[in-house]
Formats: sequence, structure tokens, C-alpha cells
Amino acid sequence: MTYSSFFENAVARLKDERRYRVFADLERSVGCFPRATWHGPDGISEVIIWCSNDYLGMGHHPQVIEAMAECARRMGTGAGGTRNISGTSHPIVELERELADLHGKQAALVFTSGYVSNQTGISTIARLIPDCLILSDALNHNSMIEGIRQAGCEKQVFRHNDLGHLEQLLAAAGRERNKLIVFESVYSMDGDIAPIAAICDLAERYRAMTYIDEVHAVGMYGPRGAGIAERDGMMHRLDVIEGTLGKAFGVMGGYITGDAVLIDAVRSHAAGFIFTTALPPAIASAAVTSIRHLKGSSLERSAQQRQAARTKRVLALAGLPVMDSQTHIVPVLVGDAEKCKAASDRLLRHHGIYIQPINYPTVPRGAERLRITPGPAHSDVMIDDLAAGLLEVWLALDLPLKAWAAAAE
Amino acid sequence: MTYSSFFENAVARLKDERRYRVFADLERSVGCFPRATWHGPDGISEVIIWCSNDYLGMGHHPQVIEAMAECARRMGTGAGGTRNISGTSHPIVELERELADLHGKQAALVFTSGYVSNQTGISTIARLIPDCLILSDALNHNSMIEGIRQAGCEKQVFRHNDLGHLEQLLAAAGRERNKLIVFESVYSMDGDIAPIAAICDLAERYRAMTYIDEVHAVGMYGPRGAGIAERDGMMHRLDVIEGTLGKAFGVMGGYITGDAVLIDAVRSHAAGFIFTTALPPAIASAAVTSIRHLKGSSLERSAQQRQAARTKRVLALAGLPVMDSQTHIVPVLVGDAEKCKAASDRLLRHHGIYIQPINYPTVPRGAERLRITPGPAHSDVMIDDLAAGLLEVWLALDLPLKAWAAAAE
Repeated sequence: MTYSSFFENAVARLKDERRYRVFADLERSVGCFPRATWHGPDGISEVIIWCSNDYLGMGHHPQVIEAMAECARRMGTGAGGTRNISGTSHPIVELERELADLHGKQAALVFTSGYVSNQTGISTIARLIPDCLILSDALNHNSMIEGIRQAGCEKQVFRHNDLGHLEQLLAAAGRERNKLIVFESVYSMDGDIAPIAAICDLAERYRAMTYIDEVHAVGMYGPRGAGIAERDGMMHRLDVIEGTLGKAFGVMGGYITGDAVLIDAVRSHAAGFIFTTALPPAIASAAVTSIRHLKGSSLERSAQQRQAARTKRVLALAGLPVMDSQTHIVPVLVGDAEKCKAASDRLLRHHGIYIQPINYPTVPRGAERLRITPGPAHSDVMIDDLAAGLLEVWLALDLPLKAWAAAAE
Repeated sequence: MTYSSFFENAVARLKDERRYRVFADLERSVGCFPRATWHGPDGISEVIIWCSNDYLGMGHHPQVIEAMAECARRMGTGAGGTRNISGTSHPIVELERELADLHGKQAALVFTSGYVSNQTGISTIARLIPDCLILSDALNHNSMIEGIRQAGCEKQVFRHNDLGHLEQLLAAAGRERNKLIVFESVYSMDGDIAPIAAICDLAERYRAMTYIDEVHAVGMYGPRGAGIAERDGMMHRLDVIEGTLGKAFGVMGGYITGDAVLIDAVRSHAAGFIFTTALPPAIASAAVTSIRHLKGSSLERSAQQRQAARTKRVLALAGLPVMDSQTHIVPVLVGDAEKCKAASDRLLRHHGIYIQPINYPTVPRGAERLRITPGPAHSDVMIDDLAAGLLEVWLALDLPLKAWAAAAE
């Protein structure tokens, strides 16, 4: 190949910085989740998955599976075209209605992924607003940052969840300037929550539009699983609510919801929507089934909250550095890229516990962590085994424990 | 909503320019394709789909469907995470091996769509090449243009399939400058084919790297369905071959193949790959089944070529302005946005024939067309009915027919 050395060097740099990622080849089996089969370098073994974003296990729900299988048998495996050119299937039309209803909005638009919905959604919306200034939370996800970059308009970053800083920027821009505030409800690496009501107050006061990413909240918060904005009674105050079908809903795809005219404008102008093959009908059908189930059932949400709270308590009591989190996400600080990777490797090989290391650029250097996502299917015994496994690894790698740290002072 | 008027105006502009798209809500039934049920404004009716990119009907192949349904039942409906964070399933690992083998390359990387594979693949590759100059065919797809734009490096556009112009740009850049030539094998709106061998000659002479998009060729050309480069014996001379799982393979997703080190570098640096949920195992499994089938069977390819050739002959004999095409794609020129939309509407309502109008920006203004994709499942009678339907529409809308045009001279 021409230019091999450039690519060799790029990979070598990552290895030098201990940022080279190795994917674990996993085989999840319906009925056994969170247990899975790991195809490792030394053969096959059983592991417990502790870092899945199939937060509620809906990807293994019998009705959701049956919807996918049944629809594939009835309508085939693919959409067969872009939404405009033969790819609009009846299930995807139903899915968009279901999502609009979920968020109490006039309309919804489905994308191939949550990533694409942010990337092409934000860039298209901002381009349609004359002289738009985007105000972006400092911890927004890469997909939102890419969307902002593609919009090509002016951008200012406000300190994470810092209302004072946001207001300062809004005031400096003035009421007349068109402004779009872009933020998340649940920040997935820290598990903290945005002050939605206060951001909406500011948006009203300074005449700004709001775009919220609820991907780590949909299915899991609010009486019908519409997210934090539903829980807080704020859905009607947000202009655009973005979500995913690939995490708590257990399938794949992303979406935005909002006023009909906004959705129609994005539908008609977003290149990343117009020129791509639509989601397969079987995916749409499975997603509709999952959303409808979680609209009517809070069992999964309650069980997730219970097991997440228990995990936090048990790990903290064991002296592990559980980071502060207001949600189902349980981050445990390591603070070093190499040790984070080593901890993850040792958990997998010695304890059959699968938690990927979260290193830079996903989190800042020095904030490397294990990110644990307990779900309804994790038993109390599994949580206790997790604590024991983590403790052994912390001791083996000489990582600081809270009690020891206090004793050493 | 804040700023409603901006979105209202954006939609109004499209309506004024006759570029507003209305999606047809279709229900395809396995065993009946290319017949489908249309949920239209006046109720339900049966139509024949003539514009699907499920070119070979593989999305309705019993084995492909069974692979999807079986895998969903065994492994669930979603991947549950990014490739790095619990989303690498055994079927997706198998799929990447299958794709590398298909194109005779060391490795492959799967993306959520062909659009994303171009967008994030091209931008990542170009960013890893110091001071890269991208040479791009004038008719490259929007996803490639977005990838080039995101790369942020210098770009020059060569006239479509024009070797002289490409050589001129290569020579002007000089041998030492790093250069990436980006082009397609089959251009989907005209159905013409790139001179791959000659482009590879130029790339060697001027020390450029090559990236080819085979999305409208994979599954359909070459003895094992690897595309035009396989048919022409050119796969080994191309640095990167990009393809889709969402057209002839009948499922969804996209990919690139190439040397292991290039694939590893893209895998490790592409934000649009790293930060997005992986394809569901059931999608990967269906894709593997489809690729394997088409590696061993040329029946579908032959039938498609036969019916495409017959369609071109029958329409041309009827005097319809069939555009020159070297492939299975049959474009019929209308040359006017409003009439193109009217022709499509009339075909659907009066003849039960579904062909979307192709208007600007997908094709240049004045080149508006109906784009017909005959497949193995279209019968001879359907082709004759298509010709009759088109003739009636051409007469009703006063569109020029070839025989008449000649008589009028």
C-alpha cells in the first residue's frame, strides 16, 4: 500500500500513549444476559458484562425479539433504499409517530444512529437559523461537537452545567442574536444531570432555542420512559429532544422530536439523513415494541435504580473510589491510562468481569475510570462478586482505596 | 417554538422550487417483491417497486431472513454498546473477516452505514496523511464530499471520469506531495463506470493513494460479487475499497477494506466509528449470509443483467429517452423538476408503478430523471407494463419521445 508508514506511525503513537484499544469479542445469549461468552486470545470463557448500554436488557426482551424476527420474516431484512427512494416502510412511519407521542411533540425523525442524529440534526438546524450562535456544554458528546463543527457557525462553550457562565454568554450575545443552546440531560461518563428547568428559564429570558440530548435517559426516567425532561415536567419547554433507540430501548438508531415544521425542515435539508439507506423495518418494529413496553412498565426502571444504588453503596463501603453520580451510571476513578487498562484486563482474565477502561479522549487525562452500568438483570450476588473482584484488582495494582487513603494521612 | 419562521421559510423555499419531497409509505411483503402495499393519501393499494436499491432482492432471501431472525432470537436485537464498550459481537467479527476475504484484503471495518463509512473513513484517512491533497471525481456521492470536507485538507475536483484532467492535477501537485484519489466504480444516477485500471496506472505513476466506492457494484459484479474492481481484476491495485451492506446485500451498514495497518489506524482514530453503537449481531449475521450466498451464486447477477438489458431495449424501442448506461441502472431523462415529480405521481396513482423522481441536488438542474432499477424479480410482463405506463405518462405530460423528436426535425 502507498503511504503505509503514516498509518503505522498513527497506530504506534496510540500504543506508546497506552491508548490503543482492543475490542472484546463477545457473544451474548438471550436468557443469560448479563452473562456472555468471551472469545479471548486463550479460547472461550464466560464473563459478566458490567458496561453494557443495553441498560434495561430490552435487547433481550422476548416481545422485542419477536417483533424483529416476525417483521424480518414478513418484510425482509433491509429497507432497500433511502427514505425518499423506496426506503420509507410502514414500521418506520409508525416509529416516528410513537416517538413524537413519547416526547409530547408534534413530530419525530429517525436516523441510522444517535451519533448521526446529533451530527446531522444539530448542523442542519443551526444552518437554517441565520447568524446562529451555538452555546455548547463543555462535556457534550463527540457527536454533538461534530454537529456543531459541521454547522460552520460561531460557537461558545460554557463550563459544564454552569448556569452563571451560560447566562454570561447569553447576555453578552444579546436578545436579538439567534442562539441555540445544546446540552445533554444525563452526561454518560460522570452520571450527572443538567439543570433543565434553569436552562429553559435562561433560554426564554434571552430568546434562545434549546436542543437536549437524552440518549442516556430515554427509557429510564419519567413515568413513561421519555427521559429526565419528562421526569422534571420540562418536555414542552424544550425545542428539540434527541434520543437513541440503541441503548435502553435495546435496538439501534437515533431520532429528534420537535415541532412539525422543524422536523420537516430537517427532513428536507439534512444530507446525512437524505442520502443514506433507511433503518430496516424489522429494526423499526422492534424499537416500537420496546418503546411501547417501557411506556407502560416501570418494573425495569425501578429494578435498574435499585441495583445501581446497591452497587454504589457496596463499592463505596468496600473503600473503592466511586465517583459522585446522580444516575444509574457508576464511575470508579482510576486516574491513570495504563492502570485503567490493566485493571480492566485483570478483571476480565481473573474474575470474568467485563468492564472496558474509559481513557482519553472519552474522558480527560487523569480522569481515567471504569464505568459500571448495573441493570435489572444484575443480581445482588453479582454486585457482591463485582466488589470483591474490584478490591482484589485495586490491591494487586496498588490503586488507592478510600479507607487506606484516610489511614495514611 | 423559538424561531419557527426560519424553519417555515426553509420548507416554503423548497415547495416554491418544486423540490419538496413526499415519502411514499410502503409495505414490502416477503415472497411478493417487487410488489408492495402503498399506504397512500386515499388508502391502500398495490404497486410495483421499480426504484429499490435492494438490487437483487437479497433482503427477501429466505436464508438471509432466517439468519436475522435466528440471531435475534439467540443474541437479542441490539449490540448494546460501541464497538469498544461491550458492542463487539462475534457475528460482527465474522462479518469483517468475510468482507476482507471478499475483496482480497487483509482487513475490513464495518460502520453503521455506507454514508458513515465514506464520511468518517475518508476524513480519517486523509487526516492521517501529512499535507494530503484529495483529488475527487466531480460526481462523487454526498457522503464522500462530506468526508472530504471533514478532512479539512486541500481538495481538487477532476471532471467526471476524465483521465486527462486527473493526470493534469496529479502532475501539477508533483510526485512528492501526498495525494488521495477518491472515486466510485459505478455512478448511481447515470449508471456509468470508472476507468479503474487507468486510474490505478496514474496513481502509481504519480505516487497517489486510491479510495474507491463500490456501493452500487458490490454483490452485482465480479465472479464472487466483489464489484467492478473484481470483474476488472483490479482489487489488489486499490488501497481502499468501500462498500455497503444496505443495497445488493439487502441488509444495512457499510464498510472499508484494505491493509491491516490502515484499517487499524481508522478503527483507532475515526470518531464516527468509535463513538457510535455497533451494528446489531442479527444485522451482521444476515449480512454474512447474504455475502456468502452471492460469493457462490451468480444466478441473481445474471438475472439482473438480463432484465436490465431487456428494460433498456423495450423502453428505447418505445421511444423513451433512456440515458446511456453501462450497468443495471436505467435512467430516463425528464429534464424538469416539476414534470419529473408529476410523472412519478401519475405513474404511482394511475399505473401502480413506483419510481421516485430524482431532482436537484441529487442530479444537476435540467438533468431531472426517473431512475429505474430492474432486478431478478421483475418479470418480462412487468417490464412491458412499465413501458406502457411510461408512454402514457409521457403523452399525458407532453414530454418528448425520441421518434417524435426525430419526426419534428
